[in-house]
Amino acid sequence: MNSLVDLNDFSLDEIEKILEKAFEIKNCPERFKNAMEGKILATLFFEPSTRTQFSFQTAMYRLGGHTIGFSNSLNSSVSKGEDLKDTIKIVSGYADIIVIRHPLEGAAMLASLFSSCSVVNAGDGGHLHPTQTLTDIFTILEYKRQLFNLTIGVCGDLKYSRTVNSLVEFLNRFKDNKFVLISNEDFKLSGALKENIEKKGNTFIESSSLKDSIKDLDVLYMTRMQKERFEQNQNKKEDLILLNEEILKFAKSDLAIMHPLPRTKEIDSLVDKDKRAIYFDQALNGVYVRMALILYLLEEEKEKKEMKEKKEFVCENKNCITKTEQYLPKYFREDENGVFCEYCGKMVN
Amino acid sequence: MNSLVDLNDFSLDEIEKILEKAFEIKNCPERFKNAMEGKILATLFFEPSTRTQFSFQTAMYRLGGHTIGFSNSLNSSVSKGEDLKDTIKIVSGYADIIVIRHPLEGAAMLASLFSSCSVVNAGDGGHLHPTQTLTDIFTILEYKRQLFNLTIGVCGDLKYSRTVNSLVEFLNRFKDNKFVLISNEDFKLSGALKENIEKKGNTFIESSSLKDSIKDLDVLYMTRMQKERFEQNQNKKEDLILLNEEILKFAKSDLAIMHPLPRTKEIDSLVDKDKRAIYFDQALNGVYVRMALILYLLEEEKEKKEMKEKKEFVCENKNCITKTEQYLPKYFREDENGVFCEYCGKMVN
Amino acid sequence: MNSLVDLNDFSLDEIEKILEKAFEIKNCPERFKNAMEGKILATLFFEPSTRTQFSFQTAMYRLGGHTIGFSNSLNSSVSKGEDLKDTIKIVSGYADIIVIRHPLEGAAMLASLFSSCSVVNAGDGGHLHPTQTLTDIFTILEYKRQLFNLTIGVCGDLKYSRTVNSLVEFLNRFKDNKFVLISNEDFKLSGALKENIEKKGNTFIESSSLKDSIKDLDVLYMTRMQKERFEQNQNKKEDLILLNEEILKFAKSDLAIMHPLPRTKEIDSLVDKDKRAIYFDQALNGVYVRMALILYLLEEEKEKKEMKEKKEFVCENKNCITKTEQYLPKYFREDENGVFCEYCGKMVN
Repeated sequence: MNSLVDLNDFSLDEIEKILEKAFEIKNCPERFKNAMEGKILATLFFEPSTRTQFSFQTAMYRLGGHTIGFSNSLNSSVSKGEDLKDTIKIVSGYADIIVIRHPLEGAAMLASLFSSCSVVNAGDGGHLHPTQTLTDIFTILEYKRQLFNLTIGVCGDLKYSRTVNSLVEFLNRFKDNKFVLISNEDFKLSGALKENIEKKGNTFIESSSLKDSIKDLDVLYMTRMQKERFEQNQNKKEDLILLNEEILKFAKSDLAIMHPLPRTKEIDSLVDKDKRAIYFDQALNGVYVRMALILYLLEEEKEKKEMKEKKEFVCENKNCITKTEQYLPKYFREDENGVFCEYCGKMVN
Repeated sequence: MNSLVDLNDFSLDEIEKILEKAFEIKNCPERFKNAMEGKILATLFFEPSTRTQFSFQTAMYRLGGHTIGFSNSLNSSVSKGEDLKDTIKIVSGYADIIVIRHPLEGAAMLASLFSSCSVVNAGDGGHLHPTQTLTDIFTILEYKRQLFNLTIGVCGDLKYSRTVNSLVEFLNRFKDNKFVLISNEDFKLSGALKENIEKKGNTFIESSSLKDSIKDLDVLYMTRMQKERFEQNQNKKEDLILLNEEILKFAKSDLAIMHPLPRTKEIDSLVDKDKRAIYFDQALNGVYVRMALILYLLEEEKEKKEMKEKKEFVCENKNCITKTEQYLPKYFREDENGVFCEYCGKMVN
Repeated sequence: MNSLVDLNDFSLDEIEKILEKAFEIKNCPERFKNAMEGKILATLFFEPSTRTQFSFQTAMYRLGGHTIGFSNSLNSSVSKGEDLKDTIKIVSGYADIIVIRHPLEGAAMLASLFSSCSVVNAGDGGHLHPTQTLTDIFTILEYKRQLFNLTIGVCGDLKYSRTVNSLVEFLNRFKDNKFVLISNEDFKLSGALKENIEKKGNTFIESSSLKDSIKDLDVLYMTRMQKERFEQNQNKKEDLILLNEEILKFAKSDLAIMHPLPRTKEIDSLVDKDKRAIYFDQALNGVYVRMALILYLLEEEKEKKEMKEKKEFVCENKNCITKTEQYLPKYFREDENGVFCEYCGKMVN
């Protein structure tokens, strides 16, 4: 069964096919209204994420299918004293596709190992959220018609935001891209990712002023501060880099202003009326992209990822799913940089 | 996009059309079973109201559509640190119609301002609940064949019950109606509404005895005490005006006994078997009326209400949605009685 | 309206019809995909049971129907200050079939008394859970092709597990069955049920060792310890009777290993790969059986059970629904063993 756990498991070719299908659907949704008739999508949300869950449910309904699921494991009897693996085995007997969100890193990979149906990762802790990235790419393609030779600003919490990290990583697969990294000192992009940008022959500059940096941007991707972090330092008001009408005066006329939403205060609501503000379109695109992904996973053939078991290694990440689900095979992968846990992606010391 | 926020925004002509459609549906539901095929209704219930939510969901399913939604914002991630406006903008991208219930007055109007799809008010604090009133009117029409020249008893909590207030207000649009207001001293109908009855040439009498008043009634609309209120005065058993078989002996043979439900103790359950007790039919009618409303909003053309912004005014109602959502334009309306907040309907001092 | 409250209200003939329909559906689900088009199933879960709820929802969707419902009455406004009877009356106006789960014994029978649509008992306290038993029987039939002349081991908590008790009771309707009751001292099957086995001419033996008893078994039905009970005696590790690969070496090659799930630790997860482990198939069968049941209840004619009111009796069971819902008629039945409450099934002293 095909699953989407990590976007890196998909070739550019495969991603292109999904995005093409998404454009096809957006142009003529009517043609796909019965594509999933009689099929069931299960949304297993072990932590609440209402927007993401709505987006998947809407996608399934627009394809003529049904959904089951829960929005918060606290209100559910699932997984009380039961292995996550058993929950997945049972539900995958009922459903044709499982969408899982879980606070632990690697939970979606676990699900893909034990499920008898397709699995989609809708966020596993701070680790991955690939359908958000697919949505972001789709939206950039829609507005810019290309994924290379762009000047992309990412602004806000570049350290903790997994959507920023995934997006930069993905766009770095294409040539002649220039990244403008706008953040305060405490929220800078990781050194490893900056190295990767240079390795691929792309470039980046760092800035702490949105006003100074906005003029060259083709795309501006805003993110909110991780609330947890922000509340600890509540007196540090200067942490917030704000986009408002004033600053927008310095921007290109065809800038694409994006945001994964929800926003807190980092984009002034007066900006919403500016035609360059496309974040609500971006949210809607999430439905088309998820429709395309569902069709792709259930209808196409895809090679299974090969796993390597290394019994001598132990993942040290305390948020890794291997910590609570101890029956899991010890899958690790190796490259020139080291050995990495296949579940949470963290390096093994 | 057409919305139903306040029944007063609809002409009698429009309401008649909706009710006619509801009768048509009740007579032949089969004909409408695919009317909303492929469409999505979102139930955004920021406070739980299971019956109302079920009623809307059932209506949408009986029309062949789908639903998404939540039943309690505490279990949802929606609106945590996000403006209500953003939630509405995102969800209205996914859905074809939004049904909103919210503890703050004016929330449904806010939704109608920012939504890109139709909005229905399913209760905004103590303010309005127009689909309940539509259901009540439909039921009276069904059993009495007319909305004029009726003797209507309303009994129980006439002060706090928004359904009683809406119903009296609506029936006061028709001539030769006589209102019998049955309540204890602390739960009397507001003076303003009593004045309006007289202004329109209708009449009312007040009573504290259901037994004495029941004999002339064509309709008896019972309501429960607001629990909050009741528990404070738990020793005041006399607050409860009870309808039982004994009292019913004095009533007309074609009395229509109604109740918006849930009831607590104000109607003895032995009354349920009396053929004059139509409150469960009334509940079921709610589905037909909501089916008709959905069809009306999505299929008919309606003129948009015009708003007037008055920057010099501030609404003082602490339960008004303008208190928490501060980006809202300051809409007020003026008439001979004063200036009113367009969101919560309260007068500005 | 037909309801399933207690499997004992169904004749073997009726049960056979349901199981035959379930096999028919499993063989060709496609044929039934529109059987419930336009129909609504309501899942009223006054306590959470995610798997059971998913199973019913999936069944309804696979038949082309819709569902409404809640998964936990704490998040719902249903039954706050309202009689359960009123909730049932209202919801049965909306839905075509109600599935109820409730912490109190007899709640499903209450629902069947007041509902204007069919009702299915999905668990009423520790009392009954008939669709689990139907699923178990279906699975045994599928793997063993017969329900007589079997050696059936039941292992674990034989005292508190309602599924074990129902299954043994049901299989005891057939001849030449031998029951092997495997448990620790504190968790033995009730004396009354053991007497019934002998009365019917079947046999049983008791054992505290799974290893010693497994070799003759055709079916092994494992159950988990009731957590509540287990936690009180947490030092008693010996309470757990474990099935693992080692013990399985002594079993027949065509043993059917079953479990109602969720399991906790009583079956080692390495057993999952053994082809004799059929508990996940059993869970999936629950969907086919529930599909068949829904069709049976809505499409067949069934005689209504007759009730006898005995005003002189009072049920003393503190978990009986008659304790909270005091308007209930006092239904009791009598046989040679005594007088029993019709709601919770307990004997009246």
